[in-house]
Amino acid sequence: MKILVLGGDGYLGWPSALHLSRCGHQIGIVDNFARRGYDQELGIASLVPLASLRTRVTAWREVSGLRLEVYEGDLTEAGFIHRVIRAFRPEAVVHFAEQRAAPYSMIDRDHAVYTQVNNVVGTLNLLYAIGELDRDIHLVKLGTMGEYGTPNIDIEEGWLEVEHKGRTERVLYPKRPGSFYHLSKVHDSHNIEFACRAWGLRATDLNQGIVYGQQTPDTALDPRLATRFDYDSLFGTVVNRFVVQAVLGLPLTVYGSGGQTRGLIDIRDTVECIRLSVENPARAGEFRVFNQMTQSMSVLDIARTVAEAYPGDVEVERLANPRVEADQHYYRVQHSRLTELGLIPHLLSETLLTSLFDIAREHAERALPQTILPQTDWRTPSATARTTPPQVGEMLPQARTVRQRSSADDTSTAAGSGAP
Amino acid sequence: MKILVLGGDGYLGWPSALHLSRCGHQIGIVDNFARRGYDQELGIASLVPLASLRTRVTAWREVSGLRLEVYEGDLTEAGFIHRVIRAFRPEAVVHFAEQRAAPYSMIDRDHAVYTQVNNVVGTLNLLYAIGELDRDIHLVKLGTMGEYGTPNIDIEEGWLEVEHKGRTERVLYPKRPGSFYHLSKVHDSHNIEFACRAWGLRATDLNQGIVYGQQTPDTALDPRLATRFDYDSLFGTVVNRFVVQAVLGLPLTVYGSGGQTRGLIDIRDTVECIRLSVENPARAGEFRVFNQMTQSMSVLDIARTVAEAYPGDVEVERLANPRVEADQHYYRVQHSRLTELGLIPHLLSETLLTSLFDIAREHAERALPQTILPQTDWRTPSATARTTPPQVGEMLPQARTVRQRSSADDTSTAAGSGAP
Repeated sequence: MKILVLGGDGYLGWPSALHLSRCGHQIGIVDNFARRGYDQELGIASLVPLASLRTRVTAWREVSGLRLEVYEGDLTEAGFIHRVIRAFRPEAVVHFAEQRAAPYSMIDRDHAVYTQVNNVVGTLNLLYAIGELDRDIHLVKLGTMGEYGTPNIDIEEGWLEVEHKGRTERVLYPKRPGSFYHLSKVHDSHNIEFACRAWGLRATDLNQGIVYGQQTPDTALDPRLATRFDYDSLFGTVVNRFVVQAVLGLPLTVYGSGGQTRGLIDIRDTVECIRLSVENPARAGEFRVFNQMTQSMSVLDIARTVAEAYPGDVEVERLANPRVEADQHYYRVQHSRLTELGLIPHLLSETLLTSLFDIAREHAERALPQTILPQTDWRTPSATARTTPPQVGEMLPQARTVRQRSSADDTSTAAGSGAP
Repeated sequence: MKILVLGGDGYLGWPSALHLSRCGHQIGIVDNFARRGYDQELGIASLVPLASLRTRVTAWREVSGLRLEVYEGDLTEAGFIHRVIRAFRPEAVVHFAEQRAAPYSMIDRDHAVYTQVNNVVGTLNLLYAIGELDRDIHLVKLGTMGEYGTPNIDIEEGWLEVEHKGRTERVLYPKRPGSFYHLSKVHDSHNIEFACRAWGLRATDLNQGIVYGQQTPDTALDPRLATRFDYDSLFGTVVNRFVVQAVLGLPLTVYGSGGQTRGLIDIRDTVECIRLSVENPARAGEFRVFNQMTQSMSVLDIARTVAEAYPGDVEVERLANPRVEADQHYYRVQHSRLTELGLIPHLLSETLLTSLFDIAREHAERALPQTILPQTDWRTPSATARTTPPQVGEMLPQARTVRQRSSADDTSTAAGSGAP
């Protein structure tokens, strides 16, 4: 199958491209290198060194004999994505090409607006290109479990059967997200559902949990094939960040009580979910939603699991929660559709954590410990009042440290950190 | 009370500003004249001639002795709205300043993207300005009944109590809108609800029905105070368009069967709803939603009502529906919160229609009949693949006529037209 992977140079886009390639598909990668640009903007970096996309593609060819086509450009330029789809003629498009960090979107007004415009306009341009060129192309779009928030009722897979005053309706599951990033994905979902309804497009919205891990069988074949290992407060996801904190001898930092429960997924399962979604396309006109996660854990439980797996002392610290989230809440998620398609989940295990500790230790000298603590208080808007989105290379404006040790309610067993 | 009216030069913004001014409030008007620009872009025009904003403000001062401050600029420029709020120090902001025509948003990719960016970014900039400068400012935001779509269950006022698997939650009412314009308002609602939750802002989201009428007691005082009378296929709303078709001796055009049922409201009630919302502010942190409509009617019933009120022959024609909407559906809407605050509705009456016929007749020589029939098929995406939003003065690209007489199912009594 011919598959375009948008954002194919990113943390998950790259291993997904390799997995699909190895499974016999013909892959085109689209990227504008925005993610590498955020590193420059913010002074952060992947713990594991990254080869350039050109080097990666060469390495994959050497290792596997398989070719990857590359298109460099920006989805917010409508003409670009239109030309790429016309040239490559994909049967499926996997869309990872969005700004994907909630904390980044909450830095200030510029970053909120940039995130929503980048994500929403990129997806709109893609919908129009598909709608005009070939409505049969299956769109596989990355959403997030964070779109749902933490409702007091079970989270279903995208749709909800509602009974109200004696009548029934199947509705899009009501969303109540917790950041301008998460909101951008909610906006995307609404736009995509409409395009399916209006134009008969076929789409799969993958509401993904927090991804952990850094290796897939493909990326492990050669150091040049490695994907990102983020651990900073903006792009680092909770398990990976705890692992780096443990290895660096830093305290694991919990936001609030650590009672926030989140859906998780192993990076090896992510790439397999992408394959399963692509190989089992949605019907024409169908907007289907899969909850792409394999287990739920509270942040405190994640911290305890990492601490127990680590072969050394792990200190523990609790931070005032900079986020807008409940840290005690109901959380029960339906996530059976991908397992029905054949996913065999890897649950969070000591084996996986041990291999992550090894990777972190190997690259520990590259770590930037000052990037780990949160700098942005989500409850205080910061309006920088510029008129253009931030450019790659500009520095993080007016970051404010929200570090704040809680004393009264500190417990020595508490360990954790916010969700991504 | 000091009140900023964003979009205060528009169809409803202008009469709302006058009504609030006459009721003793101190008014600032913000506008970028985008609505007048769309006229130039599309070759359409208000049936009633419009004075410039400067002339309008002068006329209001002469007639009432009251002053209106004016700020000319664009909400998508964050610095502009930040400066205006800092200078004017409003207690409430009434936000009409969005691209408000569903058909306009469906012309092509450019217009879809322009609509979503203009509306979403403008509102985000406003939220940040309020959040940073004075969280006590009450935001009164114009939404639309079209955000809900036509669900098979009763439409409540913004929130829905859901019982699911034995548990309950109060959720944002699930939306399923029918155009990229309506979607932009759904995006806004989600962003605003988050800002209330995260920053403690206070907001009222007014999901307004289709407005009809052209005069309020204030605009009728002087021809220079008149507001718009749109009747074209893009900006004309259904009642006003039928009135003009009748007066011009043109057939009333129904989209599909005319069974589409919509909420309606008289322009005199709109301005009163704005006053009631402003004078009874939301609580700090509250995101409340009022359904701003006074009655529901099917398009066919609206057509019959107009035809019966018209003192002459009215021809009838049915068009293939260019829109993405059901024309047979359940529609029952809760809309009691504004009447609880004191609204006394004007229902659609022969008196009102007669006065609208008179206004239309008075200006009939200005009519542009070629602008009345729909030119855009919403079920066919048109990707013009430009990279910038349309500029004022550019012409409507590649308009396609979707006029199509249905023959078999045509009935001589059918009369109507699509909702706005």
